[in-house]
Amino acid sequence: MELISIIEGFHPLDNAKLLERAAELAPNLHHKVKEPVGGFQLKERYSSEKEEVVLHKLRHLAMGKGQNLCLDFGTHYVGYLTLNLSYSGSHPDAPAFLKLKFAETMQELSENSEEYNGWISRSWIQEEYIHVDQLPAKVVLPRRYAFRYLKITMMDTSPKYKLIVSHAECLTETSADVDRMEPYSTGDPLLDKIYEVSLRTLQNCMQDVFEDGPKRDQRLWMGDLRLQALTNYVSFKNYDLVKHCLYLFGGSRFPDGRVSACMFTAPTVEADDTWMFDYALFYVVALEEYLQQTDDMEALDDLYDIAMQQVEHSLRMCENDVVSREAVDGTFVDWTEGLDKTACAQAILIFAIRYARRLARHKNDWSQSNWLMDRMRRLENAARARFWDEEKKCFVSNGQISIASQVWMVLADVLSPEEAYDLMSRSDEFLDNCPMSTPYMHHYYIMALLRVGLKDKALNHMKEYWGSMLDAGADTFWEAWDPKDPKASPYGGSVINSYCHAWSCTPAYLIRTFFCNEEED
Amino acid sequence: MELISIIEGFHPLDNAKLLERAAELAPNLHHKVKEPVGGFQLKERYSSEKEEVVLHKLRHLAMGKGQNLCLDFGTHYVGYLTLNLSYSGSHPDAPAFLKLKFAETMQELSENSEEYNGWISRSWIQEEYIHVDQLPAKVVLPRRYAFRYLKITMMDTSPKYKLIVSHAECLTETSADVDRMEPYSTGDPLLDKIYEVSLRTLQNCMQDVFEDGPKRDQRLWMGDLRLQALTNYVSFKNYDLVKHCLYLFGGSRFPDGRVSACMFTAPTVEADDTWMFDYALFYVVALEEYLQQTDDMEALDDLYDIAMQQVEHSLRMCENDVVSREAVDGTFVDWTEGLDKTACAQAILIFAIRYARRLARHKNDWSQSNWLMDRMRRLENAARARFWDEEKKCFVSNGQISIASQVWMVLADVLSPEEAYDLMSRSDEFLDNCPMSTPYMHHYYIMALLRVGLKDKALNHMKEYWGSMLDAGADTFWEAWDPKDPKASPYGGSVINSYCHAWSCTPAYLIRTFFCNEEED
Repeated sequence: MELISIIEGFHPLDNAKLLERAAELAPNLHHKVKEPVGGFQLKERYSSEKEEVVLHKLRHLAMGKGQNLCLDFGTHYVGYLTLNLSYSGSHPDAPAFLKLKFAETMQELSENSEEYNGWISRSWIQEEYIHVDQLPAKVVLPRRYAFRYLKITMMDTSPKYKLIVSHAECLTETSADVDRMEPYSTGDPLLDKIYEVSLRTLQNCMQDVFEDGPKRDQRLWMGDLRLQALTNYVSFKNYDLVKHCLYLFGGSRFPDGRVSACMFTAPTVEADDTWMFDYALFYVVALEEYLQQTDDMEALDDLYDIAMQQVEHSLRMCENDVVSREAVDGTFVDWTEGLDKTACAQAILIFAIRYARRLARHKNDWSQSNWLMDRMRRLENAARARFWDEEKKCFVSNGQISIASQVWMVLADVLSPEEAYDLMSRSDEFLDNCPMSTPYMHHYYIMALLRVGLKDKALNHMKEYWGSMLDAGADTFWEAWDPKDPKASPYGGSVINSYCHAWSCTPAYLIRTFFCNEEED
Repeated sequence: MELISIIEGFHPLDNAKLLERAAELAPNLHHKVKEPVGGFQLKERYSSEKEEVVLHKLRHLAMGKGQNLCLDFGTHYVGYLTLNLSYSGSHPDAPAFLKLKFAETMQELSENSEEYNGWISRSWIQEEYIHVDQLPAKVVLPRRYAFRYLKITMMDTSPKYKLIVSHAECLTETSADVDRMEPYSTGDPLLDKIYEVSLRTLQNCMQDVFEDGPKRDQRLWMGDLRLQALTNYVSFKNYDLVKHCLYLFGGSRFPDGRVSACMFTAPTVEADDTWMFDYALFYVVALEEYLQQTDDMEALDDLYDIAMQQVEHSLRMCENDVVSREAVDGTFVDWTEGLDKTACAQAILIFAIRYARRLARHKNDWSQSNWLMDRMRRLENAARARFWDEEKKCFVSNGQISIASQVWMVLADVLSPEEAYDLMSRSDEFLDNCPMSTPYMHHYYIMALLRVGLKDKALNHMKEYWGSMLDAGADTFWEAWDPKDPKASPYGGSVINSYCHAWSCTPAYLIRTFFCNEEED
């Protein structure tokens, strides 16, 4: 499935007041210097077979044509690379020609990017070819990278000299204030590790905005923002960054008021010409959750109408209280090929209206609240009539039984508590057809289990799924992960996958809110 | 033949006084802004088949993945590129990934650099891969290039946008003050064209130093310097740049006083660990010719001893007044494979001693002058005895009859004028065996013809040889050129050849000094 929206002649509608306020809320960035903790050489160009290099010998390793040196920075960082280069042999009589490959994982490091031919731009692959005209040199690369590993390949020197990487460092960048975090332990080593990696994932996605991934797309997506904000509230508590992002989404929208699925912020703030049914509704959810945390009346006043617009627009896309084909076509839910999203879209609309009603009550807008209640009931009834199979005791979306449909209908509270409990108790039955592709969907699966009170099952699933990423070597959690097919990619090549992806950071939220909530226990 | 000198643990001996004086003599650089005069698209990746693009449409040409745009700057320039990039379609959602290929000639433009596997570093090939993260963008490339053509290939965009090159310009750089040149015409269109292209060649090689080629090696080589200086004296008259270079060669030398064949000037001044028998002797020649022009007594006082050292060292490399194997192994003469250089080395030593004697007389160093005279006579006698074949009436170097041996022996004045005239009259006989490879050698061939008075033959050869480069499309004259084998390269691939090469600029010198000298005619 390719998700590409192109609207010819698209011009977003800007709200100067909101954009100005967004600019005032732009975060400070924190920087640290990190150096490699190890090094190795890959034996062949695209092999993963490696030969360790003792760290203190790194700066004496002289590289001739074709040789490589891989630096291991110990864990995943986002930042700017500086290389100090020198040489051994005669005075360099030709430029040094280097290929630099930044990789978030070992697998990525040994992949041949030239073989990538997927539908997402290969320009996201973090590789550079550089010429260094004078040696010794301090090379400061201008672009930001997301990586743990750096492979330096000597494309050419000259017979007269070899290159030495005498020093390398990464100036890390994040708007998460890590130093202010208090130490936290669950007492369970696996949970502690999952927690740590979740927070590193979030931290490395926290930049000028909440990015979906610092490797790709480096951009503010609504579906990611909601989950990042939740995790941020239990960790870095950077409320202004959430507000900044909510104002950005509000400040540049579709001409008819819809919130875009994604925002560009450079060179200027501009809504993407991509609208998604579910993502627009998550704006309502994220705003309500932000207000729960902050009680920020300025934000409520400024953004309330925009939130209501999203619901109203979505409701206009229903026919006989069922989401239209157009609404479903604009719904994401998950990357799973062939997934029928009709039931999901219906459920997400109901789910969002619950948050919209809370906003209306907060605003003392009782007529809106009542109107929303009425629409919600009609949607719930239609959902039950259209999607619930009384015989099979599950939701069927245009003939398809998927876990996603069950999850979202449970989260939408369409069933009675008993029915919902029964359904989620049998969730294993639904896992194999249209299986979940992403940690994003796995998060909502766990939320549905928690919703019906299946806390142990939820915890076990989290440990198992996110734990399997740890087993596979994750330093940050990944955009897409199928333990049975480690090379799976929604984009036609795992080399383009993002291995530090915002929507995968939620275990820290789950742990602190549900699994190890001191207040609860 | 590969010419690579590597001396382990080489540390040149610096003379602080000379280096300081050299620094004071560093030239001003002149800049101009040049824009493309035309554009085209190459139909296939490495084809030369092109489709013209009307100039005023260039800035509306939207390039998708795989497309290319070639800009033609009208003639050869050396300088810095700025690209203004914008886009059509949706807001770019991925970086623009571009390949930039700078080419001095059309042939180079359609060559596949990945196929190059010669002995000189591929790092000299003027290609860059760049990622542009934000659009619109003004991209200022930090490196200097030598080019007429620029091929821009879209490695990838994204399906959402196409790239537009809205503006391109080259900030040219040279230490030649072109604006102060007086107009000059020979009255012969071909000669005028050869003259113009010669001067453009020199101009584009005149940078911080007299470079051998602005594409490759961008460096001060002694053999090139001598010819550049001669051409400079009849054109740009930048005497200080010659002096700057002579002081650089003097300021950092081999520990035993020898002048290096080549100087590095960045990051600091440093002699290359390459010594060449003939190039070291040309230091003497170039100094004497500089003094002829300037009568600069400071330079004579500062550099006289160094010049004499070169001759004395070379004389110590003779056995029974014939150059040793070691001397011959260190002699360049030309790139021709299999050329026996013994006679040439002997002749170049005699040739240089003539200039050294002039220096000694200038310095009133009569004992040195007499000593040099004695050594020269002995070398001349030995040359005749060892290399002159009385029967064949030509020079034979270890059994080999080459044009190079005849040329250098004539320039060394080893023969009587009548013998020399007779020999050069028959020069065609010697052209096919070990044929000349470079304009450098062709220059000395013409000098030998002129030496014996064969002015028409010399003029015709110059018109024919350099004219054939014009016929093949030269905007500047080339490093290597065999009209019968246009793709010939001394380096294992024509893509690495330099197409603006200092040692090819001498026709302007020849025209103004010998062929169209108003004082003579």
